[in-house]
Amino acid sequence: MSTTLSAPPLGLLLEDIVRRHRPRQNAGSVPGNIPFLATVPFDRFGIAVATTSGEVFSSGDAGVPFSIQSISKVFTLAMALQGGRSAALWSRVLREPSGTSFNSLVQLEAEKGIPRNPFINAGALVVTDHLLEETPDAATQLLRFLTEQAGSHEAEPGSHAPFIDEAAADGELAGSSRNLALAHFLKDFANLTQPAAVVVENYVRQCSIMMTCVQLARAGLFLANDGQGSTGRVLSPSEAKRIGSIMLTCGMYDAAGEFAYRVGLPGKSGVGGGILVIVPGQCAICVWSPRLDAKGNSLAGTAALADLSDRTGWSVF
Amino acid sequence: MSTTLSAPPLGLLLEDIVRRHRPRQNAGSVPGNIPFLATVPFDRFGIAVATTSGEVFSSGDAGVPFSIQSISKVFTLAMALQGGRSAALWSRVLREPSGTSFNSLVQLEAEKGIPRNPFINAGALVVTDHLLEETPDAATQLLRFLTEQAGSHEAEPGSHAPFIDEAAADGELAGSSRNLALAHFLKDFANLTQPAAVVVENYVRQCSIMMTCVQLARAGLFLANDGQGSTGRVLSPSEAKRIGSIMLTCGMYDAAGEFAYRVGLPGKSGVGGGILVIVPGQCAICVWSPRLDAKGNSLAGTAALADLSDRTGWSVF
Amino acid sequence: MSTTLSAPPLGLLLEDIVRRHRPRQNAGSVPGNIPFLATVPFDRFGIAVATTSGEVFSSGDAGVPFSIQSISKVFTLAMALQGGRSAALWSRVLREPSGTSFNSLVQLEAEKGIPRNPFINAGALVVTDHLLEETPDAATQLLRFLTEQAGSHEAEPGSHAPFIDEAAADGELAGSSRNLALAHFLKDFANLTQPAAVVVENYVRQCSIMMTCVQLARAGLFLANDGQGSTGRVLSPSEAKRIGSIMLTCGMYDAAGEFAYRVGLPGKSGVGGGILVIVPGQCAICVWSPRLDAKGNSLAGTAALADLSDRTGWSVF
Amino acid sequence: MSTTLSAPPLGLLLEDIVRRHRPRQNAGSVPGNIPFLATVPFDRFGIAVATTSGEVFSSGDAGVPFSIQSISKVFTLAMALQGGRSAALWSRVLREPSGTSFNSLVQLEAEKGIPRNPFINAGALVVTDHLLEETPDAATQLLRFLTEQAGSHEAEPGSHAPFIDEAAADGELAGSSRNLALAHFLKDFANLTQPAAVVVENYVRQCSIMMTCVQLARAGLFLANDGQGSTGRVLSPSEAKRIGSIMLTCGMYDAAGEFAYRVGLPGKSGVGGGILVIVPGQCAICVWSPRLDAKGNSLAGTAALADLSDRTGWSVF
Repeated sequence: MSTTLSAPPLGLLLEDIVRRHRPRQNAGSVPGNIPFLATVPFDRFGIAVATTSGEVFSSGDAGVPFSIQSISKVFTLAMALQGGRSAALWSRVLREPSGTSFNSLVQLEAEKGIPRNPFINAGALVVTDHLLEETPDAATQLLRFLTEQAGSHEAEPGSHAPFIDEAAADGELAGSSRNLALAHFLKDFANLTQPAAVVVENYVRQCSIMMTCVQLARAGLFLANDGQGSTGRVLSPSEAKRIGSIMLTCGMYDAAGEFAYRVGLPGKSGVGGGILVIVPGQCAICVWSPRLDAKGNSLAGTAALADLSDRTGWSVF
Repeated sequence: MSTTLSAPPLGLLLEDIVRRHRPRQNAGSVPGNIPFLATVPFDRFGIAVATTSGEVFSSGDAGVPFSIQSISKVFTLAMALQGGRSAALWSRVLREPSGTSFNSLVQLEAEKGIPRNPFINAGALVVTDHLLEETPDAATQLLRFLTEQAGSHEAEPGSHAPFIDEAAADGELAGSSRNLALAHFLKDFANLTQPAAVVVENYVRQCSIMMTCVQLARAGLFLANDGQGSTGRVLSPSEAKRIGSIMLTCGMYDAAGEFAYRVGLPGKSGVGGGILVIVPGQCAICVWSPRLDAKGNSLAGTAALADLSDRTGWSVF
Repeated sequence: MSTTLSAPPLGLLLEDIVRRHRPRQNAGSVPGNIPFLATVPFDRFGIAVATTSGEVFSSGDAGVPFSIQSISKVFTLAMALQGGRSAALWSRVLREPSGTSFNSLVQLEAEKGIPRNPFINAGALVVTDHLLEETPDAATQLLRFLTEQAGSHEAEPGSHAPFIDEAAADGELAGSSRNLALAHFLKDFANLTQPAAVVVENYVRQCSIMMTCVQLARAGLFLANDGQGSTGRVLSPSEAKRIGSIMLTCGMYDAAGEFAYRVGLPGKSGVGGGILVIVPGQCAICVWSPRLDAKGNSLAGTAALADLSDRTGWSVF
Repeated sequence: MSTTLSAPPLGLLLEDIVRRHRPRQNAGSVPGNIPFLATVPFDRFGIAVATTSGEVFSSGDAGVPFSIQSISKVFTLAMALQGGRSAALWSRVLREPSGTSFNSLVQLEAEKGIPRNPFINAGALVVTDHLLEETPDAATQLLRFLTEQAGSHEAEPGSHAPFIDEAAADGELAGSSRNLALAHFLKDFANLTQPAAVVVENYVRQCSIMMTCVQLARAGLFLANDGQGSTGRVLSPSEAKRIGSIMLTCGMYDAAGEFAYRVGLPGKSGVGGGILVIVPGQCAICVWSPRLDAKGNSLAGTAALADLSDRTGWSVF
């Protein structure tokens, strides 16, 4: 791995990335079942890099809050692995790429209710259920965790802390038939301990957390930093590495292989248009642009990350 | 990535690995359709590490030739990417984890004859077909490539160059109905240009190449060395990285996620019991032990690599 | 079709059927998700034949009420076809054998929410939803329909009218995660107009109707009688025939082909152990014995019907 | 079953059927992998009825030979059941509707090489393999059987006996990759005793038999006549009935349910545009028109049979 933060300075590079990749036309799609995401202007584009040496670089709309959606799955997994009950979790969900769409029920039926990994919806519902066994409100707990890791938002003028967009959550919940189907299906296989409706509601509220690129890059930094977070250890070094491995093999829905090929870094995307990427030992990156490709990943965001990886040499391979 | 070749010296470490992981009991399985693999004694175990600085360390049965089987797929892919016709290849095969067994026809039907990646059998048949478009004997060409990259076998007393075990190939060919089914199926989708029987025969002969751990570690070194092989450039740095990404996401059949989680390195296994692993920038590792786990990967080999990764800190994450 | 009601007289024949087929040992299985069905003694066995000439023959436990379960699907389909809105129904459900288990979600995903036929659970939920568009309580409406068709229960000493076993329905509802998953999945495909929970509750109450063999044979007679029921026309002759065709191709879960092969008559089974069979132009038969084969059909009931078909020559082929 | 051969006389009725249903426009499709079928003029339409009382009625192009294709599967199954080895056959192939396309490999993989029924391609290959265990040339044996059953072709001026169109067979064989894939797949599951290429070649030659509607109706008459053929018993009454049941549940590819619903009679179609239909106890019908619907069944032929069934009352239900 030949990695360098050398010329051009990272700040200038990010500005150039924004210049090149901010969408000029309304290409790509928005998720049909989450109405409010369609209202975000197509030309939003932000990028932020938080380094293990404590610096933060950003450009474009990096201070604009967006809906983190499935990026939340990385952090709920981290929270689930904190508690010393990880063996129980890993008996309920695998760590393999799924090869199918993120919300498919097919594989779940074939594999008798054990989701392929924690980043497909079925697996994330199991993670949420695991958290709910110890806390009545996993979404609020996640918000607290993210706020703490994101830190120092007071320093940014005009910025505010991460928050749950409850109106958006309500709207998303109304279109959650597929997730309810998954939850009841998991229940049928005895792989859900809480009521299906409770798990789905909590899951949707996690997805509806609003954060900026800067906040998400900071919040994800512990994954690039051997598990060390802004206010202390979050995970052991080996657990942090292992979340990275799951991000690389499973983080981009059924485009994980293509993303590993083009970008070469662990990443996790959300249908809100955000992507969180880890450069082990060096930095966490968050890019955001709301329009999606056919696999549900940010169109401009993916292109920007491939470009950034090429120009910095950042790659785990 | 905190990597170190420090104490204990690598040679001693490999000896300890052999001591700990050489099987004492006949556990695990052998592939039912390749009779000669069942004749290999269960307690064979070898390991070799070839470093980018030019050193080779080895221990155990690292000088005993074994059947490379699917590890050949890494090298045929490299050969296919050399020629400047990679765009043609990537229009015929994807780069995504399959989520299903290595020899499944199901996904191929759903996806209309485009294999998920070059490391499942259907994808490897397409790669072989691609090579056969330019050479009448891809297996011999592969043997020549491997022999050149493995290099300096003359220096090892009692050793000989890689060779095709033609008797074993004949035996394996007799049990190749599944691969013939895949090849005719690809043909039906117009994704095979040569006759199905020719492609399968060539593929089986590639799999029947016999090499030692030392030879395979040397032959794979270019993948850890930015594409630079023993006698010159094999691939561009970015192509070498990209093969690494495919190994990480697709190299261990449907245990790729688990291997990334436990070992954290790009690897490719074969049902002959070998596994080739890449530590980018540092070394290539080959471990061999013939008995397999339920997913078709070397039982003792996988455990040894997890142990080695833990003790050296080698991981891409 | 060579059919005859000749010697031995049907009454004696049914007595012999009971003698031969009433279980002496507790073989077969009970459905795991419906606790109360496990409490029914294994050696219950009843059979009744209602002829188009107005006679009813019966033997064994033909007067004991049992849970009709999926046999209800025949009658809800008939009710749905009565209303002049059949075109709307047939745009929401197909008429093809499914080839998969009765409660599978796989095919539903592949076919974008259009169930294969009205007799798999997904299809029956759509039929119930269709009925609920016009009535707030489809289960009670079904009970009324069945009671009217079953008729003259006053004449049987000790017998009572069909009824819903509400306690059993409650118990079954608690184990209805799979049906809730199916209903939410249908909702996701916009193939459910009522709330998922309402449809499932109504469906479960339909399944929990308790009837005797005699009552079910009488209630099904209109299907053997060109659509003419006990108190007037139920369906047109062609609709009656067509329900028969769906029973033959789809009525026995994924054993429909085997049942057509062995028995040669349109039938519909339920996991309560009942099977309703139609001999077009001649009679309706209901057999009941509670223990099931691997496909979910009454073990002794299926064997008895094959025997009866052989001995009477009753077959549509 | 209310069946009548009454007014209008059958001959006039068939003439009206031809008038109504002979295609005036080139609608529908032709099979892409069998080039010669595309050369048949779209407006060909013939129909013939052979009754158990020994009469034959026909109209339109009922004397023009066409490629029987999959209709051959009914007769190879009958031949396979003649020999007293039916138990061996039924251990290798099921009798259930498949729910998937006629040439799918998916189900075969899930069910470990046991085809769902003898009328999907995989099942027909097993039947052919079964026949080849006793005869070196099953296609010629089938031709002889069909010629004998079709009988009395000498009486028809300008007609000739059934024959194999060897040129068409060669062309079809060149496009048989899918069938070769199926055959090798069956071999992999040890459900093929002869070489895959031999079975496929024989199968294709069976499909390439050329017959007229009149000949096919006569040849299929034993299925309507309790197994009694033109020159003696072909099958026992129960075996004849059982072939009828397989035709009804599996004979029209994945439109079997729809055909049972609309026509209500056991039928078997071929991609040559022919359909053979049985009215148990009364007659065998063959209709032919070369253009196909989306499921691979004759477009005009299916419509004609629905019309004929409505106007005669012929239906098993």
